[in-house]
Amino acid sequence: MKKLIIASTSTIHGSGYLEYLLPTLAVFFADVKDLLFIPYARPGGISYIEYTKSAQKAFAKIQIDVKGIHEFKNAREAIQNAEAIFIGGGNTFELVNQLYKNDVISILQMVLERGTPYLGTSAGSNICGVTMKNTNDMPVVYPPSFTTLGMIPFNINAHYLDPLKDSKHMGETRETRIKEFHVFNETTVLGLREGSWLEVLGDTISLKGTETARLFQKNEIAKELELGVLTIK
Amino acid sequence: MKKLIIASTSTIHGSGYLEYLLPTLAVFFADVKDLLFIPYARPGGISYIEYTKSAQKAFAKIQIDVKGIHEFKNAREAIQNAEAIFIGGGNTFELVNQLYKNDVISILQMVLERGTPYLGTSAGSNICGVTMKNTNDMPVVYPPSFTTLGMIPFNINAHYLDPLKDSKHMGETRETRIKEFHVFNETTVLGLREGSWLEVLGDTISLKGTETARLFQKNEIAKELELGVLTIK
Repeated sequence: MKKLIIASTSTIHGSGYLEYLLPTLAVFFADVKDLLFIPYARPGGISYIEYTKSAQKAFAKIQIDVKGIHEFKNAREAIQNAEAIFIGGGNTFELVNQLYKNDVISILQMVLERGTPYLGTSAGSNICGVTMKNTNDMPVVYPPSFTTLGMIPFNINAHYLDPLKDSKHMGETRETRIKEFHVFNETTVLGLREGSWLEVLGDTISLKGTETARLFQKNEIAKELELGVLTIK
Repeated sequence: MKKLIIASTSTIHGSGYLEYLLPTLAVFFADVKDLLFIPYARPGGISYIEYTKSAQKAFAKIQIDVKGIHEFKNAREAIQNAEAIFIGGGNTFELVNQLYKNDVISILQMVLERGTPYLGTSAGSNICGVTMKNTNDMPVVYPPSFTTLGMIPFNINAHYLDPLKDSKHMGETRETRIKEFHVFNETTVLGLREGSWLEVLGDTISLKGTETARLFQKNEIAKELELGVLTIK
C-alpha cells in the first residue's frame, strides 16, 4: 500500500530545513531506522555530498540515519532495499534527468506501490505526479522525457503562489501558466501552498498542514480545497 | 546584416500591447509595409487568429499590415519571402515545439542572418539566444530540443525580476535559478528587465529602453549593464 508524504516545500519561512515537518515525519517514519536520500535535484547546484549532509542533520533529530544514493554502487539496488526514501527539492529538470540517466524510474514506481514510505519535497513532490509539466523550475537541462512517477492521478504545482496584488510585473501569474497547461493537456493540477502537504495512504489522499490547496481542472473554474481527505475526480 | 529588436516584454504596466515600443518600431521598420507574425507561443492559450488580431491592431498604428504564418500554405516559404518578422510572447516550450514541428528553425536563422528585420518579445526574444534554457515558462509541452536560433552569443532571461524584498515565499529567486543554470551550462545569460530591449545591428548589440540589464556569467559575480553598446565576452 502506497505511503507517501508529498510536501510543497522543505522549509517554511523563518524555520530550519524540514523543521515544520519533523513532528509529522517522526510518526510517519516511526519504524524507520535508515533512510535513502536521493539528492539529484541539487538546489542551487550544491553537491550530492553537501545536500545529503543537510538531510542527515534534519533526520538525526528524529533518530533516523540517512545515506545518499550516490554512496551505493548500484542505485537500483539501493532503492529496492531502502527502508524509506526521501527525494528533496531543487531543479526538477535535473532531478528527472538523473532519474532517467540512472534508470531508476521503474524501480521507484515498484517500491512505492509496494509500500516503501516516501517523502518528497518540492521537486521531489512534482515527480509524484503524472508529468513534471507543472514545475516552476528553469529548464537548465533537457531530460529524456517529462513523464514522472504517476503515484497520484494528477500533477503537483509546488510552492503554489497566489497572484501578487498591485504587482506591476507583466510576467504570467501561476494561475495563468496552469491555464496555458490545460490548453495542451488534460491532467488535473493541484497547487500546493508552502506549509501544506499531501498524505497518500493507498488510494486515500489527504491535504494536511496549514493551507488550503488550489485545484485546476481543464475547462473548469479553479477551486479551493479544504484540509482533509480529497476527492479529486 | 542582422537587424533585430529583442524585447523583454510586449507590454509594460499601464500601457497597451506594444505601445511603449511603437516609436522605436516606426523607425526600425521604416521601409516595411507587410510583416509576418508567428503566433506559435499562444499566450494564455489564445488561438493563432486571435493573437494575430492583437498584432494587426498594434502595427496598424504605424501603417504596417500583419499576416499570421498560419495564413500561408507553406511556413518556410512565408518566412523566406517575409519583408519583416515578429514573434510574440507566450509559452516558450510551445513556441519552440512548433518551430521544430513546422521545420522553420533553419530558414529563420538564414533570413535573420541575411538581414530580414525581426522583432521578438518575451518568448520571441528567448529564442534568439543559444538555448531556451533560461525561460521562466512552465514546460506545458515537450519540445524536440531546447536549442534555439543562436542569433546572439548568449541567452536571454526575459521579464527579469529582482528578488522581492520581505517576501516570505521560499521558491527560488530568478538569480538563484540562473546560478543553477550555470552549474550545468557555460552560456552567458542576460536578464532583461521589462521596459528594455536589445537592438542587434550586425555584430553590434545595444541595450535600449529604460532599465539596466543584469549579466550572469559562469563563475563570476552578476553585474549590471548600463544602456548603450554592450561588450559581452
